[in-house]
Amino acid sequence: MSSVGTPDPNSGWLSEEELAEARRRLPLLYVEALPVRVDGVGQVTEVGVLLRANAEGAITRTLVSGRVLYGESIRSALFRHLEKDLGPMAFPLLPASPVPFSVAEYFPFPGAQYTDDRQHAVSLAYVVPVTGTCDPRQDALELTWMTPMEAASPGIAADMEGGRGALVRAGLASVGALY
Amino acid sequence: MSSVGTPDPNSGWLSEEELAEARRRLPLLYVEALPVRVDGVGQVTEVGVLLRANAEGAITRTLVSGRVLYGESIRSALFRHLEKDLGPMAFPLLPASPVPFSVAEYFPFPGAQYTDDRQHAVSLAYVVPVTGTCDPRQDALELTWMTPMEAASPGIAADMEGGRGALVRAGLASVGALY
Amino acid sequence: MSSVGTPDPNSGWLSEEELAEARRRLPLLYVEALPVRVDGVGQVTEVGVLLRANAEGAITRTLVSGRVLYGESIRSALFRHLEKDLGPMAFPLLPASPVPFSVAEYFPFPGAQYTDDRQHAVSLAYVVPVTGTCDPRQDALELTWMTPMEAASPGIAADMEGGRGALVRAGLASVGALY
Amino acid sequence: MSSVGTPDPNSGWLSEEELAEARRRLPLLYVEALPVRVDGVGQVTEVGVLLRANAEGAITRTLVSGRVLYGESIRSALFRHLEKDLGPMAFPLLPASPVPFSVAEYFPFPGAQYTDDRQHAVSLAYVVPVTGTCDPRQDALELTWMTPMEAASPGIAADMEGGRGALVRAGLASVGALY
Repeated sequence: MSSVGTPDPNSGWLSEEELAEARRRLPLLYVEALPVRVDGVGQVTEVGVLLRANAEGAITRTLVSGRVLYGESIRSALFRHLEKDLGPMAFPLLPASPVPFSVAEYFPFPGAQYTDDRQHAVSLAYVVPVTGTCDPRQDALELTWMTPMEAASPGIAADMEGGRGALVRAGLASVGALY
Repeated sequence: MSSVGTPDPNSGWLSEEELAEARRRLPLLYVEALPVRVDGVGQVTEVGVLLRANAEGAITRTLVSGRVLYGESIRSALFRHLEKDLGPMAFPLLPASPVPFSVAEYFPFPGAQYTDDRQHAVSLAYVVPVTGTCDPRQDALELTWMTPMEAASPGIAADMEGGRGALVRAGLASVGALY
Repeated sequence: MSSVGTPDPNSGWLSEEELAEARRRLPLLYVEALPVRVDGVGQVTEVGVLLRANAEGAITRTLVSGRVLYGESIRSALFRHLEKDLGPMAFPLLPASPVPFSVAEYFPFPGAQYTDDRQHAVSLAYVVPVTGTCDPRQDALELTWMTPMEAASPGIAADMEGGRGALVRAGLASVGALY
Repeated sequence: MSSVGTPDPNSGWLSEEELAEARRRLPLLYVEALPVRVDGVGQVTEVGVLLRANAEGAITRTLVSGRVLYGESIRSALFRHLEKDLGPMAFPLLPASPVPFSVAEYFPFPGAQYTDDRQHAVSLAYVVPVTGTCDPRQDALELTWMTPMEAASPGIAADMEGGRGALVRAGLASVGALY
C-alpha cells in the first residue's frame, strides 16, 4: 500500500487556472481534522481550533483542512494537512479507521448546512489526537486549545468559517465529549 | 435543505472530454450502495449483487455505484444511482446517517486495495435496505439476491470489479452479517 | 438467528428483589432509541421526545429506553421497547447496523455525563426512523414531535432525564442534523 | 469524569457464587479489544491474537476480553483488561471514540453468531493500537502478531473461541484492512 500514499509530482496536478475551472464543474474532495488532546484512557480533554485571517482579512476560526490530490491516499492527505497547519512536531495519531465521523458537504450558496463561496466541496472529517507540540504554519495565525465545552459554545461556533461550528459539535459528539 | 439536493442542469456539468481530462487530474467523488433485504428487526437476510457486462464484454459483478455531480448532495446522488441501477420500484430506505460504512479509494494502478483503470475515485459506501421490486436498468443485466454468506464467499469476491469483494465484506461486517 | 431473539420465559428472569440486588452489583445493559421522521432521501425532519411523569410525579422528557433481558438480542430488545413506548402501529425501521451511535454510561452519582439514581447502566443508543402512527403506552404521557433544532435546544435539554439532552444532540450529530 | 473511572473496591462487587447466579439471569457487559500495530499514517500493519489454554486445557485463540465492573467506565475496563492481557508496557492508545466497531452478542446455546457456554454476554469491541512491548500475563500463553490477511484467514478463524473469527474480520473491515 505504501506506493499509494505518495503522489507522483508529474502526474498532472492542476494549475491555478485549471483548479478554478474544476471548482465550477465538480465536487472537490477534502479532508478535515479536529485536533484534540486525550488523557491516558483516550478521553478528549482539549480541542484545538485554528485562528486564521481569511481572504478578506477578517479573523475567523477553522479546522485543519485541505484538498486530496490526484493519486494521494486520504491518510496521506490528512497527514500532509496536519503537518502543514500544526507543524512537523505535532505528532498526530491518525485514526486506524478511515471512516470519518462526519461527511460535511459545502455548497457555494446559502441554505446549505456548510457553505464555501469558492466551490462545492465534500469533506471527510476526523478527530485526531496530537501528542507533540503544535506550531501553526502558513496562513494560520494561532492554534487555541480549549475545553470541549468551550469549543461547542455558541460564541466559538459563530466565529467558525462556513458553518463549521456544527462540525466541531459533531466531532465532539462522536467522542462522547458533547454536553 | 431541499434546494441542495437538486443540481441545476445549467450549472456547468462536464462534457465527455472535460470529464476525461478531470479524471487525469483530480480524485472523483463516488457513492456506492450494497442493496440488502432486512427482516422485521433490521437484520440483513439477503444481499443484492449486480451482474454487468463491462467495457470488454466480460460479465462481472458489481455494486450500485456512480458519480456525485456538481451541486448534488450525497443523499441525492445515492438515490439517483439506486433508481438508475435498481429501477423506480425498488423503494430504497436511505440511511439516516450520512456516514458511510467504508471509504473505498480506487487507484488506476496495481497494488491498491481497490482499482479503477479510468481514474482515481473515492467512494462513500452505504448498506441500503430496499423494500420494493428491483428491475435493473441500463447496462446492468441482472440483480442477484444471495445470502450474506454467499456474498462474502471467495467465488463471488473473485467476480467483483476492482476488488469490490472486500467492500462487500466490509459492508456485511458493518451490519453484523459477516461470518 | 431467529431463536436468539425470543427469550425463554422460564429461563430465570429476575424478581423485583433480585433485580434490585443486581442493580447494586453489576452494570445493567440498556438500549435506547431516538425516534425520528425522515424524508424520501433519509434526511431527519422531526425528532420524537417522550413526556413522562417520573417517580416523583414531575414531568420530564426522555427517550425510548429499556433493559435487555437474559437471552434477548439487542435488536429484539430495541423492538420490544419501541413497541411498548410508541405503540404497535409505529412501524419502526430498525437500523441494519447493530453499532450504536453512542454508548451512554449512566452512574448513580454526580459528576458523570449521564446519571441514574437507581443503578449503573450502560445504554446502546440508536436513531430509529418510524413510519407509522405513534400511540404512547404505559407511563409515557405523550410523544412530542419537534424539529432537530428544537430537540437540540438548551430548553429541551434541561427537561431531559439523566443528562439525556447530550444524547439527543449526539444522535442528531450522527445523522448530520445537529446545527 | 475522573472519579467515574475508579471503581470503589467496597461497592459490592460479586462473589464467585453471586456472579454464577447473575450469569443465569442477566446479560453481562464485556469489552473486547483487537490489539494492532499501525504505521505512521494509522494504517494497520499487524494484528495481535492471544493463544490461551481454555478450561478444558485445549489451546485456543482469543482477543483481549473481560467484564465491566460495577461503577467502572468502559474506558477504564478496556484499559484494565489490556494491561492484564498484554502487560504494563504495551502502551495501548485507547480510541477517542467510545463507539465500538461491533457489538458482539454471545449466547449460551448453538445457532448464535457468537457463543459462550457460561453466559449471555454483550461485548463492545474496539481496535486498539499498541505502541509498546507486549508481555502477556495470567492465563494467556502468548501473543502472536500476524498480518491482517493471516488474521482473517479461515485457519485462524477456526481456532478462535466462541466464533470470534467473525469479530476479528469485522474489526479489520472497520479499519479498511479486510481483503
